[in-house]
Amino acid sequence: MDQNKAMVIFQPSGRRGEVPKGINLIEASRLLGVDIEALCGEKKVCGKCIVRIEEGNFEKYGVISGMKNTSDWQPEVESKFINAENQAKGYRLGCVAKVEGDLLVFVPEESRAGKQVVSKAARDIKIDWDPAVRLYFVQVVKPTFEDCLGDFERICKALAREYGLPEVLEVDIQTLRKLPGALRDGNYGVTVSVWNEKEVIRVQPGRVEHAYGIAIDVGTTTVAGYLCDLTNKEVINTASMMNPQCKYGEDVMARITFHMTTPDGLQRMSDDIVEGVNELIAKAIVETHPPLKKVKKKKGEEGPDEFVEAPEEGKTYQRIKMEDIEDITIGFNTAMHHIFLGLDPQFVGLAPFPPVIHHSMDIRARDLGIKVNPSTYVFVLPNEAGFVGADNVGVLICEEPYKSDDIQLIIDIGTNGELVLGNRHKLISSSCATGPALEGAQLSFGMRAAPGAIERIDIEPGTFEVNYKVIGRDAWRKFSEPHEMKAKGICGSGILDVLAELYSSGVITKTGVFNKKVLKDHPRFRKNADTGQPEFILAFKEESSIDKDIVITQKDIRQIQLAKGALYAGCKLMVKRMGVEKVDRVKIAGAFGTHVDRTKALTMGLFPDCEIEKIEGVGNAAGDGCRAALLNVKKRSEANWCSRNVEYIELTVEPTFEQDFMEAMQLPHMTDAFPHLEGVVLPEILHQAMKGAK
Amino acid sequence: MDQNKAMVIFQPSGRRGEVPKGINLIEASRLLGVDIEALCGEKKVCGKCIVRIEEGNFEKYGVISGMKNTSDWQPEVESKFINAENQAKGYRLGCVAKVEGDLLVFVPEESRAGKQVVSKAARDIKIDWDPAVRLYFVQVVKPTFEDCLGDFERICKALAREYGLPEVLEVDIQTLRKLPGALRDGNYGVTVSVWNEKEVIRVQPGRVEHAYGIAIDVGTTTVAGYLCDLTNKEVINTASMMNPQCKYGEDVMARITFHMTTPDGLQRMSDDIVEGVNELIAKAIVETHPPLKKVKKKKGEEGPDEFVEAPEEGKTYQRIKMEDIEDITIGFNTAMHHIFLGLDPQFVGLAPFPPVIHHSMDIRARDLGIKVNPSTYVFVLPNEAGFVGADNVGVLICEEPYKSDDIQLIIDIGTNGELVLGNRHKLISSSCATGPALEGAQLSFGMRAAPGAIERIDIEPGTFEVNYKVIGRDAWRKFSEPHEMKAKGICGSGILDVLAELYSSGVITKTGVFNKKVLKDHPRFRKNADTGQPEFILAFKEESSIDKDIVITQKDIRQIQLAKGALYAGCKLMVKRMGVEKVDRVKIAGAFGTHVDRTKALTMGLFPDCEIEKIEGVGNAAGDGCRAALLNVKKRSEANWCSRNVEYIELTVEPTFEQDFMEAMQLPHMTDAFPHLEGVVLPEILHQAMKGAK
Repeated sequence: MDQNKAMVIFQPSGRRGEVPKGINLIEASRLLGVDIEALCGEKKVCGKCIVRIEEGNFEKYGVISGMKNTSDWQPEVESKFINAENQAKGYRLGCVAKVEGDLLVFVPEESRAGKQVVSKAARDIKIDWDPAVRLYFVQVVKPTFEDCLGDFERICKALAREYGLPEVLEVDIQTLRKLPGALRDGNYGVTVSVWNEKEVIRVQPGRVEHAYGIAIDVGTTTVAGYLCDLTNKEVINTASMMNPQCKYGEDVMARITFHMTTPDGLQRMSDDIVEGVNELIAKAIVETHPPLKKVKKKKGEEGPDEFVEAPEEGKTYQRIKMEDIEDITIGFNTAMHHIFLGLDPQFVGLAPFPPVIHHSMDIRARDLGIKVNPSTYVFVLPNEAGFVGADNVGVLICEEPYKSDDIQLIIDIGTNGELVLGNRHKLISSSCATGPALEGAQLSFGMRAAPGAIERIDIEPGTFEVNYKVIGRDAWRKFSEPHEMKAKGICGSGILDVLAELYSSGVITKTGVFNKKVLKDHPRFRKNADTGQPEFILAFKEESSIDKDIVITQKDIRQIQLAKGALYAGCKLMVKRMGVEKVDRVKIAGAFGTHVDRTKALTMGLFPDCEIEKIEGVGNAAGDGCRAALLNVKKRSEANWCSRNVEYIELTVEPTFEQDFMEAMQLPHMTDAFPHLEGVVLPEILHQAMKGAK
Repeated sequence: MDQNKAMVIFQPSGRRGEVPKGINLIEASRLLGVDIEALCGEKKVCGKCIVRIEEGNFEKYGVISGMKNTSDWQPEVESKFINAENQAKGYRLGCVAKVEGDLLVFVPEESRAGKQVVSKAARDIKIDWDPAVRLYFVQVVKPTFEDCLGDFERICKALAREYGLPEVLEVDIQTLRKLPGALRDGNYGVTVSVWNEKEVIRVQPGRVEHAYGIAIDVGTTTVAGYLCDLTNKEVINTASMMNPQCKYGEDVMARITFHMTTPDGLQRMSDDIVEGVNELIAKAIVETHPPLKKVKKKKGEEGPDEFVEAPEEGKTYQRIKMEDIEDITIGFNTAMHHIFLGLDPQFVGLAPFPPVIHHSMDIRARDLGIKVNPSTYVFVLPNEAGFVGADNVGVLICEEPYKSDDIQLIIDIGTNGELVLGNRHKLISSSCATGPALEGAQLSFGMRAAPGAIERIDIEPGTFEVNYKVIGRDAWRKFSEPHEMKAKGICGSGILDVLAELYSSGVITKTGVFNKKVLKDHPRFRKNADTGQPEFILAFKEESSIDKDIVITQKDIRQIQLAKGALYAGCKLMVKRMGVEKVDRVKIAGAFGTHVDRTKALTMGLFPDCEIEKIEGVGNAAGDGCRAALLNVKKRSEANWCSRNVEYIELTVEPTFEQDFMEAMQLPHMTDAFPHLEGVVLPEILHQAMKGAK
């Protein structure tokens, strides 16, 4: 073996391989395809990437010796997250410990980056059919000495005559290469795919009835794709996956930092998301083919297994192949946009956050490494600003506030909060640093929406007994045995529940501080043995799958307050800037919007006052906007119009921002913001409202 | 060593390597980079690829045994070209003999594909400056919170304001990736290259004054490039090379056949010419850098050699790099066009010869594998018809007959003859199968314009003594010792001389037959020992470098007559079709046109009658046309106009073609075609004219 390399094996996955000595364990895990949580992007501050170095001789695994083969313990960093007892057991921070020789590394369950339960179904929104890519069938005559016009011009002439297309079309060299064969295979009858009435991007022999495209919404955490039939607007399939860049850091700043601190960081992140998009498309089309069934071997038969198609009865299959994808639209926040396109994202992360480009782009799929029909263009939605990206443009062209008389407030809560306010007369946008707390990240037991995540919670006032529900199990805690719960953490949709319940049950006060008076000696309240921080136990060790009490700490509560405060202050400043009295309609986009309880959201003070029935979750509006742009080319110009005509406001430079932010952190927000709730004892009505909602 | 491979060494070059058993020696020579003449493209008809298999044990070379390791002698093919004596010496046809084991192969000098002396200097033609790619310098202000417009839009705004460019420009992703860095490196001052006032194709920090482009003319046999400064029209350098595809066959039909008979034939030919173009560009730019000088080592110093630049005094160097090439125009005949672009050329070779595309194309250089500035576009000139390609369009936009009142006949003699006739009112074009005879190919001793090629000749009437001049030696035979001549063959520019001299001296008759009566017992006249064909010795063995008499055979004379007949009949039919009495002006393009003696060409009947002072050679007009398109974007639209508005005429289907062709083969053409020479005894005046011309 190379002197400069070492064998590293990760357990329990068993993934192994040689890695260069000197890299840290997170880097090694990436090289070997092991997903370890690294929320802070190796900034050594989140403490999520704790692993255990196994001691002993593991020759049977190809590893000679154990824990001595890592770099020295760094007390100033690692002691913050690992106590002496665990240190003795071999626990280390993956981003600190470096590989110095062969290693067997155990990744505890809480450090594993689990697969999120992504649900981003396509909503039934109205889209006028006007796709960028259309199919045209033409039958031309064979060339003769009298008429020996070239193949391409012969086809163009027929397209102009029969469909009124321009006389001179363009054609990509890769399409042109296939044209003479297709023309003769089809006996001079071909189906031509024309992009934007301008360029021929595919020529197929004979008559072809359907063309396909995919709209892709790349979130910081999840990626969703809507596979559509371009000829009839039908959504054929939806597919989603984790953003493979999560391994480089949970939020955009962590990824920008990864780029700035790693020589080929941008390339690696870009390659990963491109590969991810290819996988997503493959995933979306696989179900358009019949499943395969293994053919039973006769006795004595040898050789490799054989498979036959086993179509389900009554089901038709489109049998879509990668090269049948003839159009793609894609949207993301500005940082993801830049990383996907290989554009330096560092200036998007530095004040005043200028993007490299706002305008939409039509980029040949092959130039991005996307393996569909080679001449296919990818329409990249335009960016509004450094922190309000193409995803928000997607939300806008989906919700169309610029066609509305009502003043709409559109909130897209992802890892960042993106806000739009206005109507047909004026639109302003902004972003607020909610941080990922509302998505469940950066909390002691925050996690993605994966099995074992607490998503709903209920705390009994007085007794402070906790009843909760986890993803992957229908029965609540109250109706289950402790060991059946297998709780692991709290996910985004549970966060607001936790905060509301802690407050309405009296566990915390209006300012978010634990009410030590009533909690004194309560078995669920304690000081953390290591940090000395007060914390409240939501699920006891025996209810968890990670052999630990699942708690919420004072610091966690602060994080949630900061997020809600940022969001509320942002909304308030925008309302002020707009000069309006009140908001007519609130739309909440994103996964958070789909799951949030609108009463709870209003009363907890996530956004300014609005009639409850005028608050609506609009699902993955960013993704729906990408789909609208896929099926209606006019939405693409509309997107560019939006990106340049929505005024971006940088909130942090507003003079009252800090004051507003501080005030908005209180629970629930001061009643002057909720005139129609005036005089009501908030904790009580909130509790009632929540009981009713369940 | 792999059982299925054998070691083959070619001498005298010494190139060696393992090749798969079963391939023939021409294929082996290609794999090992040895150039063997294969004029017929392995159709086993030209007999140019004779090689000698060396017998014996060559272990010192890594070859175990000799000649028994080839496939069996094929008498029906090989005996045509190799007599029994040479067969016994080990001579074989390279396209017949297959590798069955280790071999040492000697390639005789006459079978080696020599390097042609290519001279395609840029002519001083008038071109209005209006390039597709222009440079613009802009200084923009840094983004602030109040104005955080993105980098690209910031630049576009400045371009629109200061230079009146459109507000919305496009940008290639590869250029955009370099933009943020360039903007900051240049402290917000950048030079932007804009293509067609439409797309940004390069952004460089600071102020850059010059941009470069190259116009490329790909001939069947040679490739020429004109490196130009796009900012001032200056031709900085010209470069030329052999078309690397020559190894697949000398003419376009041989290459089309190679594609149809070899699975990856098209890819290989395409790759070779693309690589050739890259080499050509590298060759053109290398002289813009100072030469390097080796630094003398001090005593005792070790390590690799060091070099320093040694600029010539008073000379300025542009120091152009590959990535400084920001525009390319390229023209070729239709078959070369298709092969270069990877388009199936088979239909161009089959009646009615439809091309895949006529229209010009703008193809990203990187999509073709051309390694210049990655966003650079290659403008591919449009094709007129299957046998009249983009090269002829180049000739047209250079000579502009469509702006002339005079009826012009433009003849471009390459491996094929391309003809254009007309004026501002009407233009017709055609091609005639002259074959490569006028270029010196397909004759017994035909060769390219390389050292040792007979280029001028003089035969004394009566004595039939031959005086001649070879390329590479200034002194004629008369003033030299026999061994000083080192003659090897006859090149294109010598062909017409030979024919004219044979006729005017009385060696051959009007019908092209040897005048046996006067030649009887003459030491220069004989029957070939192998073929029985009569032949006339131009240079004796002792005057040659290949140890053979250099002869012209009866068959050779027929080939030349066929070429001249095809050309004349083509011109005549076009004149008839056009319905004109006479041609006002004759322009002869191509290397042949540069070297030909216009009196001789006229009187030998290459083209219809015309006043001698109205006949002109116009050099490499195809290349000059590419250059015009490089420096003036309007020439590109003009090219497309030409390609669609010149009427192509297929001559072979004209009813009188055969009759005209037969008549035109006579020497010199009947005097009715030359009214102003009426009554003159042609052989005599011709002889006088030629004496005067020398």
